[in-house]
Amino acid sequence: MSGQCELCREDGGETVYRNDKLRVVLVDDANYPGFCRVIWNAHVSEMTDLPPADRSLLMRTVCQVESALREVLQPEKINLASLGNMVPHLHWHLIPRFRDDAHFPNPIWAQPARQTAADVLAARRALLPALRAAIARHAACED
Amino acid sequence: MSGQCELCREDGGETVYRNDKLRVVLVDDANYPGFCRVIWNAHVSEMTDLPPADRSLLMRTVCQVESALREVLQPEKINLASLGNMVPHLHWHLIPRFRDDAHFPNPIWAQPARQTAADVLAARRALLPALRAAIARHAACED
Repeated sequence: MSGQCELCREDGGETVYRNDKLRVVLVDDANYPGFCRVIWNAHVSEMTDLPPADRSLLMRTVCQVESALREVLQPEKINLASLGNMVPHLHWHLIPRFRDDAHFPNPIWAQPARQTAADVLAARRALLPALRAAIARHAACED
Repeated sequence: MSGQCELCREDGGETVYRNDKLRVVLVDDANYPGFCRVIWNAHVSEMTDLPPADRSLLMRTVCQVESALREVLQPEKINLASLGNMVPHLHWHLIPRFRDDAHFPNPIWAQPARQTAADVLAARRALLPALRAAIARHAACED
């Protein structure tokens, strides 16, 4: 699949952690600082295309990144999603949500509800160095 | 939380499987026959509020329901999401997606793209008895 699939061809964002099975990338979304994806390296489409041990490994990393997001950004809610209708290469979206974000309380794929204040977004972006460090630290743990 | 939270107060759909930790419900959505939710029985908000063993148990059930959906409905893609911005009680959406569904290839929370033909929806609804049986069968397995 390497030629056609963009997640086979490219990292899909700024890689903040990688091992032989998966990678964690920071997504460059102006409205959602801290938006991360956990991307399975091999080209599979669905969770149930993976053997159970690999599903567990992937979800453990998703939870480690969730922990890092909660610790550093203290969001109102974490949104997790594996969709892949456009890019059917297994990847998880992790989106830290806030009451003042562009779509709250709707999913980020709905119509925007507001524009978040620039200083609020800047303050969240200022936490990205701490988030990168927290993701690397959590992903290095066994639990 | 039992008074305020609708997923503490009510099942949240037609229950097709239940154990002491979680339940699987069929969602009544005219555009998405087979839309299921896996709902944690206790009131917690995020995956990382659960101990790791319970996270695994929950995701194992999510994958079992995914297997049942793939087996019976043979969708183009499975969408999985844990959002909970409006109802912060841990639950997973499992949505079988088809090229002719109301939003494909966008998430179901985006603007509708089309109306699926009534006979196509009726044919999918006709598979719900088989889906109920497949969910019960998969959820009873150890793997």
